[in-house]
Order: sequence, then C-alpha cells, then structure tokens
Amino acid sequence: MTAQFSFQRLAYCSQTKARVGIFSTPHGIVETPRFMPVGTLANVKTMTPSQLEETGAQMVLCNTYHLHLQPGEAIVAGGGGLHKFMGWNGPILTDSGGFQVFSLSEMRKISEEGVTFRSPHDGQIINLTPERSIEIQNTLGADVIMAFDECPPYPATYQEVEASTQRTYRWLERCVTAHQCQDQALFGIVQGGVYLDLRSQAALSLAELDLPGYAIGGVSVGEPPELISHVVKATAPLLPPEKPRYLMGVGTYREIAIAIASGVDLFDCVIPTRWARHGTAMVQGDRWNLKNAKFREDFTPIDETCPCYTCRNFSRAYISHLVRAQEILAYTLLSIHNITELIRFTQKIREAILDDRFAIDFASWLEEGTSDQ
Amino acid sequence: MTAQFSFQRLAYCSQTKARVGIFSTPHGIVETPRFMPVGTLANVKTMTPSQLEETGAQMVLCNTYHLHLQPGEAIVAGGGGLHKFMGWNGPILTDSGGFQVFSLSEMRKISEEGVTFRSPHDGQIINLTPERSIEIQNTLGADVIMAFDECPPYPATYQEVEASTQRTYRWLERCVTAHQCQDQALFGIVQGGVYLDLRSQAALSLAELDLPGYAIGGVSVGEPPELISHVVKATAPLLPPEKPRYLMGVGTYREIAIAIASGVDLFDCVIPTRWARHGTAMVQGDRWNLKNAKFREDFTPIDETCPCYTCRNFSRAYISHLVRAQEILAYTLLSIHNITELIRFTQKIREAILDDRFAIDFASWLEEGTSDQ
Repeated sequence: MTAQFSFQRLAYCSQTKARVGIFSTPHGIVETPRFMPVGTLANVKTMTPSQLEETGAQMVLCNTYHLHLQPGEAIVAGGGGLHKFMGWNGPILTDSGGFQVFSLSEMRKISEEGVTFRSPHDGQIINLTPERSIEIQNTLGADVIMAFDECPPYPATYQEVEASTQRTYRWLERCVTAHQCQDQALFGIVQGGVYLDLRSQAALSLAELDLPGYAIGGVSVGEPPELISHVVKATAPLLPPEKPRYLMGVGTYREIAIAIASGVDLFDCVIPTRWARHGTAMVQGDRWNLKNAKFREDFTPIDETCPCYTCRNFSRAYISHLVRAQEILAYTLLSIHNITELIRFTQKIREAILDDRFAIDFASWLEEGTSDQ
Repeated sequence: MTAQFSFQRLAYCSQTKARVGIFSTPHGIVETPRFMPVGTLANVKTMTPSQLEETGAQMVLCNTYHLHLQPGEAIVAGGGGLHKFMGWNGPILTDSGGFQVFSLSEMRKISEEGVTFRSPHDGQIINLTPERSIEIQNTLGADVIMAFDECPPYPATYQEVEASTQRTYRWLERCVTAHQCQDQALFGIVQGGVYLDLRSQAALSLAELDLPGYAIGGVSVGEPPELISHVVKATAPLLPPEKPRYLMGVGTYREIAIAIASGVDLFDCVIPTRWARHGTAMVQGDRWNLKNAKFREDFTPIDETCPCYTCRNFSRAYISHLVRAQEILAYTLLSIHNITELIRFTQKIREAILDDRFAIDFASWLEEGTSDQ
C-alpha cells in the first residue's frame, strides 16, 4: 500500500471474525464495515452529491464499463477526473468493467488476451483487456480501482470455473504490471465460483501479491444468496487481515451481516436505489411497497427512528401519493431513505463490534437460512 | 384583506408602472415582483423542498384540479394541510381548477351552475362549481386561493367571451360568499380574452369587490405571447394599486418584464421545470439544449454568474452527459438552475426598481416584439 492509503484496525469481535477499521484514501476515510452506494454513470441515480453525503455515504462505486461507453473516460478526465466531474469529493471506487461485460454485453468473445464485445450504444466493437481496463480506470481517477476479472456464469462446471479462475489470476498479474499510478490502490478479486477449494486457492495466491486490498467477486445473476454467504465464510478469513476486504455486489441485510461476521469490510449493491425506483422502502429488514393501500392515509414517517431527510420531513402518505402519481421526487426521497437505512445498518454493526455485542445483538441476522430479500 | 395578509408597497419606477412590494401571508412574506414555481401535485417536479428553498423561491403554486383527483383533498388535510403534507413551510397559492378543467379534461359541460367533466384517472363524473372549488381549496389550506373562473378558448368571438366573462363574474360573487376562511386570501381573476374593453370592464367590476388580491387570467394554449402583453398593459393599471397583482401562467423573460412594467407583482409558469425535463437550460434570456454536441467537453458551469447549486458544482459537460444518459439527476439539476434563473430575473428587476434604473437597465426586455421564447 502506498503512503496515501492505510487500513487501520480498531477492534475485533470476540465471537466472530468481524472487525472495525478505518480505510484511508487520498479523498478521505471510510469507516468500516460500511455500505457503498452505487453511482453507475457518475451519479447515484436521482440523488445530488449533497443528498448522498447526508445519507452517511463515505465511499461511492462507479462503473468503468458504463463510463467508458458514456461519456468516455477522456471526457471525465477533461472534467478534472471522476471526483470533480461528478461533484463527489469523498473516496470513489471503480470496478474493472469485467462484471458488466460478462453480464450485459452481447457478442462477447473471451480469449487469453481479454474480451471483445459490441457496444450496446453504437454497435462498435470494443476490446477490453487487463491493461486497457487499468488504463481506463487510471484515466477516470478513482481512489480504488479493481483488477480486470472474468466472472464465470452460474451454474458452471468445476473445470470451467477452474480455467476461468486461473485466467483471472493471470489477468491480475497483468493488471499489477500495468498499474503504475501511486494515488490509486489496485484491489485484486478472488474468483472461483461456488467451489470452495478454488476460492481458497485463489485467496492464498492473491494474498502473496501483497495488494492494498482484496475483493470477493462473482455474485452472478441467478446465484442464490445462501451460496454467496457460504463462499464468503470460507474465503474472507484467508485474505490478509491487514488489508481491507470488499464483497462485490452484495447488499441485503443478512448477506451483509454474515459477511461482516466473516471479516468483510466493504459492500456495494444497487438494491437500495433500484428498489427506490420501484416505490419500495427498506425498513429494518423488511421492504414495503409504498403503493400499498394501507399507506395512503398513514401520516407517520417511513421509520420514526431514521434520521434521514425523507423521514424527518415526509409521511408515508405523501410518498405513497408521489409514487402513485409517478412523480420523480418519490424515487429521490426513497433513494435517500434506502441508502441511509443500509449505511445505518452497517454503522450499527460497527458500533456493536466496538462494544463487542455484535454476535448477540445481530444473532438473528447471522443465522443460516433463506435471504431476507 | 384580513389581519393575516398585507401588501406593502416600497418603491415605484418613475418611468413605468413597475413597483416593489412585500406581500405578507400566514406562512411568510413574498418580495415582489417575484416568480412562483409550480408544484402541481404537491411537489415541484424532481425537487425537494430544501432544493426549492435554495433557489430563492418564496411562494409556490399547487393545482387544485390535480390534487383533487390525486390524492384528493381529504388526504392532504389528513396530512395536516398542503404545507405540512408537502414539507413546504413558505406561502402557497392554489389555483381554482378552472384552467385545467377547461384545458385538460374530456367531456366537460359548462352550465351556470359550474362544470361537469370526466376524471381522467377513473372515468368518474365530477362536478366543479364555484362553491366546490372554494371548499376544496379551503380543505387544501393554501395561503392564497383563486376564484373559480371560466377560461374562454382562443380564438373566440366577442359575444362568446363577453358571455363567459360575465359568468366568471357571477361565479366570483358565489366564491366570495362561499369563502369564509380568515387565514386564506381569495384572489379574483380578470378574464375577457383578447378584448380590451371586456378586460377593462371586468377589472373595474372586480376592483369594487375589494378583494385581497387580483389575477389576470386566460393565457390559453395557442394564445400568442404578444397578445397577453397587450392585455396586461391595458388591464393591470385598472386594478386597485394597494392590492397584489398576479399574472397567471406567464413565465418567459420578456412577458414577465413587460408585465412588471405594467404593475404586475406575481408570476407562475411550468416552463422552467418542463424545459429542465427536456434537457434545456435557461441562460440570461437564451435557452440551451444540453444535448448539443458543443457542450460535451465544455467544463464551465451553465452560468458562471449564477449562484445556484448546479452552477456552483457541475459543468455543462457533466449535465450534458446526464441528459444524454437520461439520468434523472439531470432534470433535478436543470430544474434547480432554471427556477433560480427566473427568480433571479425578477429579483434583479426588483433591485433595479428600488434604484430606479429598471426602465433603462431592462429596456431591451420591454420592447414590443416577438417573445424571447
């Protein structure tokens, strides 16, 4: 880790592998464990940076794939880099583009060199290689950048995932060589699908590279949440304890709690903002559709214990009205609430770990079983 | 005017009929002349009340027709009235519903009693009369409520408009009788189409009723802006000078400037927010489509002299990117800017009147001719 980055561990849970830390970046600190909102196209959908800051957000994730296609990294760099372009002065993480290439784009062809795909915007053929992904991420200028990895489909055979995981490792080595920018930290990604021995091998191989941080990747569409928790429990403890650990794309209460208990520090997920745009509020583990008739004349806030702008100023009835009328403000107010809610969940866990009451207070969230959402 | 309302005149322009005033309401003051943003369904589209307050907005207009249909005035009242329901603690004005009944609804039938129309939401037959409009507006609880008027179509014959204007006057008398709520000020509306003698007669008849405020109504779809300026020039000076004057539905620079020069104090228009949702910024009399290629790599703010949140924090290139990507945040940022811009325009005129340099500084806006927009 370069001088501009550090990860300080402040406390451990005595009964789980959970820990409390402070991850320092050139654009400020991230108090871990913590949820990171997703700002795909250089904005967290429907929210201004001021509103985002008020939710308690510290680090925000942006998507390299989307930003490469639109507006293109050259324009972002022309605007002074991602922070200045989008008006977010806190830490930013960019993913490598790999996940989106594998899940969104058409006509992709994978080779040892990288991936070729067709742009959904203009049909243009685009090559994405480890070196190109790092170059794009260097140009975007986030604090944390991610290695270019292959996300194996689910389900996939052991042999398929093994070959893919080995290639991801070779790609990581190329990313490390390509990345020469001292003010960005390159995180490696542990792949290996649902095969725990492949995950373990990958974790141990990556650990030897002494990277500034490590991610657990591979939450594919259709992959049951229980499987991911299973993978996280087996993988996280094998990663170097002195480095931050990031579980990619996971964002429901139970999966987050279990991952924290396994020693994970950072999370991102589009669920809070996506659900907001469907008129859904996240409330202490439940989810409520504000279109439901029972909210029409309910003049209490979504959650009386929630300190967010939405809960301080508006009733369920008002938000229900806005959702029914398809007023955009509904999505803004619900995004503010949902992001605040999920960040508060990780903050409450943080405080519980500091007081060493996490395993007791959050016991119901740590049980195996079907996901909460 | 009841004790809760007052209109204080602070200054006059020596060369036009422009004036500066302070209109006091139970929810605060309005420094006139001033533009009022439109919050049709109990929200100014895409904006939170905090964002709205920061634009310099003082009084906001909501639409009785829309709120009656959705969520219904009973729910608004259940939420503590319009101010509390929508989280806007400043002055609010509701229109009477007349304009929307005449311009939006299907199968409307007009009689001396009122108007019958079919709800576009559920097909239900709805009767709107002067008494019913006042009752709904009393229930919504705005500071200023409007008399129920008939908006004659454009074009219409002299005889048609004359009959309509006379009926509007009889409806006004019924509104005055029906309205018994001391903490709401009922404004009358001068109609008369483009016929200046009908407008004059209406203005003089209304003046005799000693209402707390007067509006000039009847900007119909398709009516050329020059005609409205013509009507305003002839009508506004006939209204009682000691009462606030409100020109309904007018919101481009030139029409506002000409109306202020004729002695009008208040304005509302959906243009700033509607254009925002089309990706258009209002800039010192011009309008810019942010999708235009020239903005793609323009890293300056929309208007360097503008103090709004958008201009303080974001570049044209960033907003152009958001507009192209159809990100909702684009509409919020442009709404913030456009409303700030139009309010600033009326504020600058206010300052110019106070210094008695309005007629000189705004001479180019006061010329007859085609509208700026």
